[in-house]
Amino acid sequence: MAKLSEIAKLLDSTISGDDIEISGLSLPNEQKEGTISVLGTPKLYELASGAAAAYIVPDDSVDTKGKPFIVVKNHRLAIVSLLNYFIPEKPHKYTISPKASIVEGATVEDGVSIGDFVSVGDGSSIRKGTRIYPGVVIGENVSIGENCIIYPNVVIYDNAEIGNHVIILAGASIGSDGFGFVPGQIPTKIPHKGNVVLKDHVEIGANSTIDRGTIGSTVIGVGTKIDNLCQVAHNVQIGTGCFIASQTGISGSTIIGDYVFMGGQVGIADHATVGSFVSIAAQSGVHGTIEDKANIGGTPMQPIKDWARQVAAAKQLPEMKKRIIALEKKIGE
Amino acid sequence: MAKLSEIAKLLDSTISGDDIEISGLSLPNEQKEGTISVLGTPKLYELASGAAAAYIVPDDSVDTKGKPFIVVKNHRLAIVSLLNYFIPEKPHKYTISPKASIVEGATVEDGVSIGDFVSVGDGSSIRKGTRIYPGVVIGENVSIGENCIIYPNVVIYDNAEIGNHVIILAGASIGSDGFGFVPGQIPTKIPHKGNVVLKDHVEIGANSTIDRGTIGSTVIGVGTKIDNLCQVAHNVQIGTGCFIASQTGISGSTIIGDYVFMGGQVGIADHATVGSFVSIAAQSGVHGTIEDKANIGGTPMQPIKDWARQVAAAKQLPEMKKRIIALEKKIGE
Amino acid sequence: MAKLSEIAKLLDSTISGDDIEISGLSLPNEQKEGTISVLGTPKLYELASGAAAAYIVPDDSVDTKGKPFIVVKNHRLAIVSLLNYFIPEKPHKYTISPKASIVEGATVEDGVSIGDFVSVGDGSSIRKGTRIYPGVVIGENVSIGENCIIYPNVVIYDNAEIGNHVIILAGASIGSDGFGFVPGQIPTKIPHKGNVVLKDHVEIGANSTIDRGTIGSTVIGVGTKIDNLCQVAHNVQIGTGCFIASQTGISGSTIIGDYVFMGGQVGIADHATVGSFVSIAAQSGVHGTIEDKANIGGTPMQPIKDWARQVAAAKQLPEMKKRIIALEKKIGE
Repeated sequence: MAKLSEIAKLLDSTISGDDIEISGLSLPNEQKEGTISVLGTPKLYELASGAAAAYIVPDDSVDTKGKPFIVVKNHRLAIVSLLNYFIPEKPHKYTISPKASIVEGATVEDGVSIGDFVSVGDGSSIRKGTRIYPGVVIGENVSIGENCIIYPNVVIYDNAEIGNHVIILAGASIGSDGFGFVPGQIPTKIPHKGNVVLKDHVEIGANSTIDRGTIGSTVIGVGTKIDNLCQVAHNVQIGTGCFIASQTGISGSTIIGDYVFMGGQVGIADHATVGSFVSIAAQSGVHGTIEDKANIGGTPMQPIKDWARQVAAAKQLPEMKKRIIALEKKIGE
Repeated sequence: MAKLSEIAKLLDSTISGDDIEISGLSLPNEQKEGTISVLGTPKLYELASGAAAAYIVPDDSVDTKGKPFIVVKNHRLAIVSLLNYFIPEKPHKYTISPKASIVEGATVEDGVSIGDFVSVGDGSSIRKGTRIYPGVVIGENVSIGENCIIYPNVVIYDNAEIGNHVIILAGASIGSDGFGFVPGQIPTKIPHKGNVVLKDHVEIGANSTIDRGTIGSTVIGVGTKIDNLCQVAHNVQIGTGCFIASQTGISGSTIIGDYVFMGGQVGIADHATVGSFVSIAAQSGVHGTIEDKANIGGTPMQPIKDWARQVAAAKQLPEMKKRIIALEKKIGE
Repeated sequence: MAKLSEIAKLLDSTISGDDIEISGLSLPNEQKEGTISVLGTPKLYELASGAAAAYIVPDDSVDTKGKPFIVVKNHRLAIVSLLNYFIPEKPHKYTISPKASIVEGATVEDGVSIGDFVSVGDGSSIRKGTRIYPGVVIGENVSIGENCIIYPNVVIYDNAEIGNHVIILAGASIGSDGFGFVPGQIPTKIPHKGNVVLKDHVEIGANSTIDRGTIGSTVIGVGTKIDNLCQVAHNVQIGTGCFIASQTGISGSTIIGDYVFMGGQVGIADHATVGSFVSIAAQSGVHGTIEDKANIGGTPMQPIKDWARQVAAAKQLPEMKKRIIALEKKIGE
């Protein structure tokens, strides 16, 4: 329970209406009595007639049906604050499980958590504030920075370099062999001697796979977030602050700029170059070179506006065919 | 070995033809001498001239070339019965491995199996008849019902609620963080305080990922079956009795009705609403609202009939273009 | 460091130019001073003006700007030789971790490595020269041949047969239950009594999933390489020497010939038949029967030439529509 005015203070704002008691946060489409709900976008404003007792809104012109409200500049940051306020994270106890296997040649700083059945290889180092959950396998000469969270059953291959504040979700594979072979009756495997570099604040989704470089590194830039079940192939370079949605695959040696947004199930061919501030629609097929700030979609990809026009026209295809036949008949007459 | 009459009795039917000895079950397209094979659909009837000694058929009008046969109403249920009859499951010994790590605060009922290197967190409970295979990691406050099978290296995050008769295949991740951030130079992570609820008789495929809710739950309904490498995002609600084929991805907050069928590699956008008894073709791109009983396909999705017509017309596109040019020439004359 | 002439000897060739000292290998697009770089294809020849001190080329007509060079027949095999020469693999120590769990009924030959927290079930056998990394779970009656590498947290279900020189990358699931059910209010699971067979020299990518047969086997042929996050369903048969790129899914009972190449994110329907020497473009949707040597693409698939023509024509669709309208106007006049 919290006074609405306390919540306003937390959000660096003030209340409009009564200073009522608030029992928690609820989703706009699942509002519960006594709670506060965040109506962040115009589509949600009409939900102000729901069960919640108060609302967070971006603007005092929203009609909250007489219920008290708080105006905030960034409704998403307000959601983060409220989630942490009403459902605070339990303080984490940093302990090393006696059931972990940490070889003598590994370096583990004070203030690290290592769970059951974790294996840490020779020459690897883990810095303070980092938590390694059960079942994680860390190879040799891996460096993991400060305040990282490595969830259960993640595998990190030899020589990976992981920055600070990196989060890797369950089952991800960091540094697996790239898919490279010399064709032949029995193909010859191209050895992969490089590594993976995850810069600070990177997040890798559950069961995603990041292959290491043939020589040199596969690099994911600062603050880039990759969703579940994504594939990043050998020697790919991804810049800063990108969002890559689930089940997207990026082929070998492709270079991605900064602040690129990709929907889910995108496929990018090898040796492609994607500029910065590019937006790629879900399920697109991408290849070649994409300029900065481009907005693309479709398979094979096109500028999103062209693609939208083409999709609209394609729906009229059966009818267009009829019109051509009609024209031919007329002309033939 | 079994008499054909015994098999008929098992299937609650009678034999037509001689009561011969049957050595086992074989696939219609890999028939082996002395075995029985199930010709369940008209496409398979012509395989009655194969090597098998007898057949299961849905109808006595099928010409089995003089070989004895058994008519059954549901040939798939017959396959299940025959598989279990000829290749019976070994009785399972319920034991707790001394190499598992079960904290004192966890509750494990009698008659549970827990394999090597399983980790069970504080406040979690596992009910009788459930088997946990090696390498599974179960977080805190997880409840797992009766008669579940959790295969090796599955990860179940804190607070998940798993019903009875649930099967989770190897490497699946249940309850990983949703993909939610507030954009910014360094994006701010939206904490995920909700959980995952898997109702009774749910099956989750190998290496699939089910994210937990931001607040509230991601819910998979009774009897819904999800294939390998599927992604179900935060706060998705899936109804009863759905079949979701491999590599399908369902984005955040989407609601799926009951008895929905999805082919493989389908992508569904966030905040979509899919009705009940909907059928979605493989590789479709789905968004918005889909009414009950709709049959859809394509990217972006369309009614399946429209899509089929459009695909057919699209193949004639190069020719249509020629015809337009021919018309233009004629008119120009 | 190595003399250029030593490198030439390694590659079974001779040098043109001075016999300089070479410090290592660098990528064509990341050339470093003092190193050698492989310019294998015409697109790369212009990089001969880079920082590298010498080049490997396929032909002595390449202008290396006066720098010494070595001509080789197969530049990819040269890359393999140079990677192994300059960055040799550390010799592997074969040891069995005391923290592994190997039941008495399992057979492990001398000269095998088994990592921490590996679980090996009853009746399973592992032959010499094979390395099992930490966290791998091997079920019952699994046979693993010689000189295999099984990376961390791989799961191998009961009865799998794995040949020699097989590599399985982190987190892959070999032999999970096929996705087969008899529909009903609560669907009935079809038990999967078969297994998975991986022939010699197969490689399976990270977090890929290979389901076992209903009866009989799911078979991956000699030398076939499967990339990360691929799905191979129950009773699929794949021939020899195929390359299957990331995130591809192959549905149940489909048969693939020899030396088939698939791009990423391909989907193949169940019961399809793909001939030998077939090439399938990325993101294609495949079904039915494909003849030997076919070259296909698109969803639904078409011969690649038809698909390319159709894609080109589709881009002109909005314009075609305008031309039809113009014709109609003219005719109407």
